[in-house]
Amino acid sequence: MTKHNIILQPSGRRGQIDEGISVRSAARELGVEIESICAENATCGKCMVLVEEGRFEKYNIDSKRENLSPVGSEERAYLERRPKLLKDKGWEIGQVRLSCQCKIMGDVLINVPEESRGNKQIVRKSASNRAIEVKPAIRKYLVTMSPPTLERPIADWERLAKGLETSMQLVHGVDAKMPRWYDMGIDYQCLRTLSKTLRDSRWNVTVSVWKDKEVIQVQAGYHEDSYGAAVDIGSTTVALYLCNLRTGELLAAESEMNPQIVYGEDVMSRIQYAIDQPDGLEKLHKAIISTLNKLLKQAARTAGVETGEILEMVLVGNSTMHHVLLNLHPKDLGLAPFVPAIHKSMDIKARELGININASGNIHILPTIASFVGADTSAMIIAEEPHKQDENWLLIDVGTNAELILGNRKRLVCTSTPTGPALEGAHVEYGMRAAPGAMERVQIDEATLEPKYKVIGVEGWNTDHAEFKGHVKGICGSAIIDAVAEIFRVGIVDSRGKFNKQLSTKRVRQGESGWEYVIAWAEETSIGRDIPITQQDVRQIQLAKAALFTAARTLLTRSGLDSPDKVILAGGFGSFIDKEKAMLIGLIPDCELKNVYAVGNAAGDGARIALLNVDKRDEVDTVTRKVERFELPTDPDFQNQFMLATSFPHMSEPFPHIAHLIPNRKADPMAKNFMK
Amino acid sequence: MTKHNIILQPSGRRGQIDEGISVRSAARELGVEIESICAENATCGKCMVLVEEGRFEKYNIDSKRENLSPVGSEERAYLERRPKLLKDKGWEIGQVRLSCQCKIMGDVLINVPEESRGNKQIVRKSASNRAIEVKPAIRKYLVTMSPPTLERPIADWERLAKGLETSMQLVHGVDAKMPRWYDMGIDYQCLRTLSKTLRDSRWNVTVSVWKDKEVIQVQAGYHEDSYGAAVDIGSTTVALYLCNLRTGELLAAESEMNPQIVYGEDVMSRIQYAIDQPDGLEKLHKAIISTLNKLLKQAARTAGVETGEILEMVLVGNSTMHHVLLNLHPKDLGLAPFVPAIHKSMDIKARELGININASGNIHILPTIASFVGADTSAMIIAEEPHKQDENWLLIDVGTNAELILGNRKRLVCTSTPTGPALEGAHVEYGMRAAPGAMERVQIDEATLEPKYKVIGVEGWNTDHAEFKGHVKGICGSAIIDAVAEIFRVGIVDSRGKFNKQLSTKRVRQGESGWEYVIAWAEETSIGRDIPITQQDVRQIQLAKAALFTAARTLLTRSGLDSPDKVILAGGFGSFIDKEKAMLIGLIPDCELKNVYAVGNAAGDGARIALLNVDKRDEVDTVTRKVERFELPTDPDFQNQFMLATSFPHMSEPFPHIAHLIPNRKADPMAKNFMK
Repeated sequence: MTKHNIILQPSGRRGQIDEGISVRSAARELGVEIESICAENATCGKCMVLVEEGRFEKYNIDSKRENLSPVGSEERAYLERRPKLLKDKGWEIGQVRLSCQCKIMGDVLINVPEESRGNKQIVRKSASNRAIEVKPAIRKYLVTMSPPTLERPIADWERLAKGLETSMQLVHGVDAKMPRWYDMGIDYQCLRTLSKTLRDSRWNVTVSVWKDKEVIQVQAGYHEDSYGAAVDIGSTTVALYLCNLRTGELLAAESEMNPQIVYGEDVMSRIQYAIDQPDGLEKLHKAIISTLNKLLKQAARTAGVETGEILEMVLVGNSTMHHVLLNLHPKDLGLAPFVPAIHKSMDIKARELGININASGNIHILPTIASFVGADTSAMIIAEEPHKQDENWLLIDVGTNAELILGNRKRLVCTSTPTGPALEGAHVEYGMRAAPGAMERVQIDEATLEPKYKVIGVEGWNTDHAEFKGHVKGICGSAIIDAVAEIFRVGIVDSRGKFNKQLSTKRVRQGESGWEYVIAWAEETSIGRDIPITQQDVRQIQLAKAALFTAARTLLTRSGLDSPDKVILAGGFGSFIDKEKAMLIGLIPDCELKNVYAVGNAAGDGARIALLNVDKRDEVDTVTRKVERFELPTDPDFQNQFMLATSFPHMSEPFPHIAHLIPNRKADPMAKNFMK
Repeated sequence: MTKHNIILQPSGRRGQIDEGISVRSAARELGVEIESICAENATCGKCMVLVEEGRFEKYNIDSKRENLSPVGSEERAYLERRPKLLKDKGWEIGQVRLSCQCKIMGDVLINVPEESRGNKQIVRKSASNRAIEVKPAIRKYLVTMSPPTLERPIADWERLAKGLETSMQLVHGVDAKMPRWYDMGIDYQCLRTLSKTLRDSRWNVTVSVWKDKEVIQVQAGYHEDSYGAAVDIGSTTVALYLCNLRTGELLAAESEMNPQIVYGEDVMSRIQYAIDQPDGLEKLHKAIISTLNKLLKQAARTAGVETGEILEMVLVGNSTMHHVLLNLHPKDLGLAPFVPAIHKSMDIKARELGININASGNIHILPTIASFVGADTSAMIIAEEPHKQDENWLLIDVGTNAELILGNRKRLVCTSTPTGPALEGAHVEYGMRAAPGAMERVQIDEATLEPKYKVIGVEGWNTDHAEFKGHVKGICGSAIIDAVAEIFRVGIVDSRGKFNKQLSTKRVRQGESGWEYVIAWAEETSIGRDIPITQQDVRQIQLAKAALFTAARTLLTRSGLDSPDKVILAGGFGSFIDKEKAMLIGLIPDCELKNVYAVGNAAGDGARIALLNVDKRDEVDTVTRKVERFELPTDPDFQNQFMLATSFPHMSEPFPHIAHLIPNRKADPMAKNFMK
């Protein structure tokens, strides 16, 4: 057999290939995947390549036409019907070939353009920027069959399955591990319309296959794209991301308030509602299902697709949201010993849950780790990959409850702790959610003890404005952290959080509910009242930070570590707080400031990654099975640690990385001035 | 390690076993399975054995007590609570041991009684009497867990799955190919009640596992039995068999008319109804589902079980019944080129079809072979096993349509042919279904041409009665075959089926619709009219038998055979006809009379076998995939063959096996006397 030299750009892969092999097959042999979904019928155009040189070992001769088989009629038809496509790319018709059609007849140098390359990638921006291969659970194949005859009256499904086997082999190679036609399955609801679709299409269909084993959609004619949705069900907000499963592209992001809020603001009150009301679970369940359907409809409209074209959904959420979604009673999540009904990930037909994607589509639900460490934390693990690190990473997802994961490739430990609503601006005297009119940043001058602040929706600091009136409504989470950190830094409160009553500023005063520091005077607000940070508010933050700190400390101790190499803050909270201030009050454990990252909605990102890359699902299943769970109340030292942690850091403690931030007061010399 | 000799009776297996191994484990090592479903907890008693001898190499010493470990407290408790059981069996307490509890300490001779043996068998009575191992898709395991604690708060499902892994290993042995706990699945609907059941049961449950991979039922406490239903959906009759899945025992057999009859008497008219009426398929589908639910309820009541305890159903039926059951449009079954939607067998959750067995139970539907060779024929194959024979067997299932399978272990061919309703007694002038008042046997005296007959519901021949009046209503299928065969044998009709007009008997006469032979005079009937067999009736039988004969002949020719080694007639028809008479008129191909078997409802038996032995499902999937299909109209010689086959056999043709039956008239010498 004559062999020829072939070089593929931009990868630079090269080798000797038998004459007569198609360029696409040759590329596979050399480890370069080229797309194709038309079963090499010259109809999809996904496999276009550019012929750069023929006989490249003798650069003076350009005979690329002779070194590839001639352009056949189908290939010519495909290319000639697309002058605009070629023009837009700046390609000439003589230069472009369909790699499934042209056969190697001599040496060639081939350029595989970005759009033709298999194994597409999306980039996740996070603590570790990295590329995620697009490898969805669902792939599409064009299948063309000869119609049945009296001589060959084989059934519709078997006819399709045999054609599908051929198409899959053309796409993946004959040696790839693909099921034989008789082991392939078809979803029952999909089977119901199969016979009609095959005949309407004149035996030429696009088949969507789930996990290389189950046909879930058969469409007449040629179709390229299918869609999937990734959903993060938070206690407060439900966010849905609609993606193109072939390209990984995000087509729509929609969110809605979680309608279960009317039955209880936090997970514990919703669990209680489900326990108390005979139809409580049913109401909670139906509320979330109808919101999912609403979001699906909105996202489909935004993206210009039909909900029936959405073939899969990946769902994450904390364990309570997970149980309610699945209509599993959450009772035991809220009662000691705090046990979920199930950890493992599940695939459930959308129709079983009444979720309006394609009737044959599946809902994939990520695994839960513990009663208060849910599928959202599993998603965070896929997004951040602590299990692939040599360093020890501490991942914290802060909400009303905080989930913490610590470790590296060898071991991961996790726990959770209630932090109360203070960190989110709730249950604080003038607290509010992050919205226009909310104070979001606070600074206090060390000398004058005068504050300046920023308000959401207003440019710059309040002091930048000649006049600044009637803008402020309240304080959101990030400003509460700022305010508490600042009054501690400038000595208005001591490390126990007690107010210094001896200061010569009218901003520190005895208010209705005790001592307080006024950040905004009534005339600066839209509510006509002074907005202070109160002793009670400080106490709330102390309790929250003590809980979080103790949880982190417990994990570190159990892992034999002093401090984590990196701290990753997930969730909206982490994105808005001032990391330095958070460390100053001891909200997060001692760590170099540059190694503290805020990564936004890691749970949502993890859901999207699991949607787009099916291997990540197996990965998270394996990883979460090995995560060690610690329940804090069972830790003998917990109460002791917790009490100590309510204090703000002072110099006598080992905080090497934030030492420069801590007010340099020896053993809190002002303590005598503070109220008991 | 010290080893001891162990002998197991009645199998006679023997070997050297390590000291300290339990008798049950030892038996497994020696290839003898002993039942156990309590995970070796001494609570189920399924593993009882009788200790026959200890130290059997020295027959003078009976020290069997010393050669097994002493009876422990659990074992003693189990046995002492059951004095009646032991008494009924005639066993003494010192002789009986629980084989999971007693350990080998010396040589022993153990008798494993029938009821303790694993791999139970049921016997199928058919052409080949043989035993079928009871190996259901569903097995039950007792699982006892320690309750969750704060230290070990593993989720309910994972806790159960780990316990289940242990139980399965105890039952099947550690080396058996069982899935690990994390690969085990649980049906979503079953999961919904899991947490409550585990707590209600105090962590002591019986788990039903489908195909060693999916948990479909979790019951509080210890349960032994589960149930399954096998169903044969005929065009006319739906038959349901409720079985104990552990013992194979048949607990109830119920049948109902197929309610689809109101939409069309035969499959073609029902297909037409589904084509013509917009909601035709929906009506047909709902009719059969509601009948299945009715039969399930009746059978459950008869057997004294709940329908929720029925964990699986196996369904068979012709291709039209199969499609309508699955709500698949049967249109293409009735239009050339006659193609089913699917051949392969399917497992569908009962709830998807609205069938009221356990909500997590599966419906297994056997594969179809062709448009008119359905899942009922597949069932007949499992029941009769032509694919395991060296001889060539011809299986015929006769109804309005006849399905034929011919072949042996090397090759199987199949076809089908419409036979018309005549063979079932319909469309015959005085035809009726087999019911009281129907003539079922006819004989004619060769000399006098006088008939005698038997009537269903009346003892003996009509001539045995001094007076025989008012009993006969009509002629059922078997009597029509008899009558036609007899008037041919005695020369009333010739081999072309034409009446001899010259005979000196008033029973042969010109009736309203042509020539006829009167079997019963009006005064013998309850309808007050003479009951004849008419020229038209003879013609109907000739067409039916020609169709059947040609189909069989085509398969033989295609297989290069002259005649089959065995003919197996399935269905009610085959059970009632006189085989000799059927052969005389050439209804079935030439074969030795002793090799013609009537096996009754082979389709129903096959369904039951598939229900009770899961391996048979794989077997029939593999076999049916290889069966070669022939559509008769595509056979070039078909019309010619068919015309020839309308004649009754005569001596000039090669019928070696039935030559002695054929009237010895040289080239039909009476032909000149017969009407044209």
